[in-house]
Amino acid sequence: MKRSDKTNQKQMSLGAFLFSFGHHFAAWRHHDTGANSPIEMNFYKEAAQMAERGKMDMLFFADALSLPDKADVQHDVSAVYPDAMIVLAALTAVTERIGLAATVSTTFNEPYNLARRFATLDHLSGGRTAWNVVTSTKNTEAHNFQGEDLPEHGNRYDRAHEFIDVVHALWDSWEEEALLLNKKSGIFADPSRIHSINHSGAAFQVKGPLNIPRTPQGRPVIVEAGTSKAGQRLAAQTADVVFTACSDKEEAILFYDALKEQLAEFGRTAEDLKVMPGVMFFIGDTEEEAKAQEAAFNELIVPEASTRYLSRLLNVDLSSYPVDGPLPQIALENNSSRARMVVEMSQKEQLSIRELGLHFSVARGHLTVCGTAGQIADQLEDWFLSGACDGFNVMPPHLPGGLEPFVEQVIPLLQERGLFRQDYDGYTLRGHLGLQQPGNQFREPSYF
Amino acid sequence: MKRSDKTNQKQMSLGAFLFSFGHHFAAWRHHDTGANSPIEMNFYKEAAQMAERGKMDMLFFADALSLPDKADVQHDVSAVYPDAMIVLAALTAVTERIGLAATVSTTFNEPYNLARRFATLDHLSGGRTAWNVVTSTKNTEAHNFQGEDLPEHGNRYDRAHEFIDVVHALWDSWEEEALLLNKKSGIFADPSRIHSINHSGAAFQVKGPLNIPRTPQGRPVIVEAGTSKAGQRLAAQTADVVFTACSDKEEAILFYDALKEQLAEFGRTAEDLKVMPGVMFFIGDTEEEAKAQEAAFNELIVPEASTRYLSRLLNVDLSSYPVDGPLPQIALENNSSRARMVVEMSQKEQLSIRELGLHFSVARGHLTVCGTAGQIADQLEDWFLSGACDGFNVMPPHLPGGLEPFVEQVIPLLQERGLFRQDYDGYTLRGHLGLQQPGNQFREPSYF
Repeated sequence: MKRSDKTNQKQMSLGAFLFSFGHHFAAWRHHDTGANSPIEMNFYKEAAQMAERGKMDMLFFADALSLPDKADVQHDVSAVYPDAMIVLAALTAVTERIGLAATVSTTFNEPYNLARRFATLDHLSGGRTAWNVVTSTKNTEAHNFQGEDLPEHGNRYDRAHEFIDVVHALWDSWEEEALLLNKKSGIFADPSRIHSINHSGAAFQVKGPLNIPRTPQGRPVIVEAGTSKAGQRLAAQTADVVFTACSDKEEAILFYDALKEQLAEFGRTAEDLKVMPGVMFFIGDTEEEAKAQEAAFNELIVPEASTRYLSRLLNVDLSSYPVDGPLPQIALENNSSRARMVVEMSQKEQLSIRELGLHFSVARGHLTVCGTAGQIADQLEDWFLSGACDGFNVMPPHLPGGLEPFVEQVIPLLQERGLFRQDYDGYTLRGHLGLQQPGNQFREPSYF
Repeated sequence: MKRSDKTNQKQMSLGAFLFSFGHHFAAWRHHDTGANSPIEMNFYKEAAQMAERGKMDMLFFADALSLPDKADVQHDVSAVYPDAMIVLAALTAVTERIGLAATVSTTFNEPYNLARRFATLDHLSGGRTAWNVVTSTKNTEAHNFQGEDLPEHGNRYDRAHEFIDVVHALWDSWEEEALLLNKKSGIFADPSRIHSINHSGAAFQVKGPLNIPRTPQGRPVIVEAGTSKAGQRLAAQTADVVFTACSDKEEAILFYDALKEQLAEFGRTAEDLKVMPGVMFFIGDTEEEAKAQEAAFNELIVPEASTRYLSRLLNVDLSSYPVDGPLPQIALENNSSRARMVVEMSQKEQLSIRELGLHFSVARGHLTVCGTAGQIADQLEDWFLSGACDGFNVMPPHLPGGLEPFVEQVIPLLQERGLFRQDYDGYTLRGHLGLQQPGNQFREPSYF
């Protein structure tokens, strides 16, 4: 059997994670990036349209609610974050099929506002939106909203869970059949099919209904990134996609299996949840060329900036420790999932602060693949067929041009191998991802 | 002197207020509107590009945070509100010069989030954004965010004022010169020119700085709509544009003079604030044709729906009172500025509930002009030259086609008369409106 005949085999999902001048920590210094601002419409537009030419499932944007530390900004463009939903909304008008995933924190937002924003975007885009649910993790973020530090990790997850429940109820508050638009009779909508949600919980009091009819996807797709125990639990119950950071295949398989195992408890199957790790790439005509490319990018990293980045990741100021020595004891005690990844690598590979800083700043802990298009396709195929993931969130090292070699060289190989669609066969993100249309908690079962 | 030679005379500002199927209460039933949804990208896009062809100053979107009452939805499409900022963001990508004004409430949002959204949009659009600052006025809105009713009117304005102050400080938190982007040295930004705002007030605790560099406009334009005493006061101090609803020229002149008089107290001149009433229009080749058009639209209004709309405006359920009788006593006691407008008209013109419902639902209290393009241009010129306004927020009765006759027939007449620009001469909304570039509270005076 030729590889291209495997049309019935499982298909990869591919996201395009767009960020600033690109994902490489020093992308902004590279000769291939020429913008005058880290927030530039033409960058995003060019990359988004390139991703759509590649028939990718979705665009993906991160978000953050503070400038971590003023000093970070000296060398580090990644301290700047445009509002993810606004960027995605802008891209709605210049794309037609590709999904649109925006990160929004549940810690410092209101569910009614968020439900309206995504519902609006789902209507405007014809059913292409996804919400990447996160909890805020930094006190610098808390201090932009309140006089106090962040609530405890557990409380943030309780709030996130309640937040998602409220948003789901609001998205359900108009049944599909509620909108009638009968010009002749003058009946616009059927009030009996529009429901107050009357939510009264620990964190939120929301009466509803939403002032927006049910959206093309019914409910926008839910993405989650948490890899902590609480994060996994929430994802098993509520996520359609999990976006992870993992650079080791065996660990990825363990995570994948552990997460999928938890689905049955909530009446869900393995197909209901897609796991997509991030992957940065350097593509050359030869392996040497690709490696030279990567090295050229890495040379642009200011060492002080990558150590600062590591400090942020660990929530520990490393500036007073010898840069060629090991991580200090205090750094080993941080329990966030990102920090744990750093600590594990530092112990496994005996790396210095300088080496860890470089390693983690480059792609922020994500898998990096480097080689010819064929080698990269092999590696992605291997992860996918080994059960390490259901696809990838692709992270171009620089923008806007950095996505092009992936779309023009790697995706055609994945298509030839029957691992990725030749074209979109629908218009909604749910459709691209092969997810079921969601039910509606306010509908009589007899309607189904 | 030919009218077209008056090139140095004061220029009108013109906004295009886009809403759902159009501003006429029954627009969705008209044969010229053909959408299947009240939130449709192509509608907005077509109208936005038409407004830009007309060289208009800005697009304008209203917003609301609740479905007023389920029963309202039966006949009334205006109960549906997409999120204004999301719609505007989507239009950023398909327009190049026209300003983009979105309504966002200060009552149920956080200043850090709002400052980021507008800063993002101002970057993406190259300096074309405006924030229409409102306070939420309905308990149905409060109930989507809290278990309690709305705070008192005065408290809402105190919060709005503090909100604007915080947002201004965040927009100022990066000096213009902070962003260096020096590829060679690897210096991205100058931390000494990025400032914490350390705001600690009655309603908000916000440390800052924003995680977004200073935007092309420095500060997006501030629009306000309030006509109450507190609203006027806030506008005199903080607004660049005031959007009013007034259908009587003499009253408009009184309002205009009263508002402009208050500017000096805050060190501002009459040119620093533009007053733009809303105006709906029906344009025909003859006056009769225009009137027939208006009548055809009005015939589509379901009388019960317009009475309900009036109930909402007055915050009093009128359904138990005779529809051909006068307003009940209880309705006369409501003190909001919109309600007062209804009460004044009911007393001046001795109108019944049915008549008032029709009158106010049609264009929601705004001026309606009806006639040939020449007659309409005459009326707008008369208001403008009489000192009743600095321009208009134009409200197409139906979308997407309803703006076309205004752009193709009325605007060319205003241009011939030297009352409106022939083309854009800049790229920012501040530039279109002739507003000064704002200062920065964190800059040393010596920098100026």
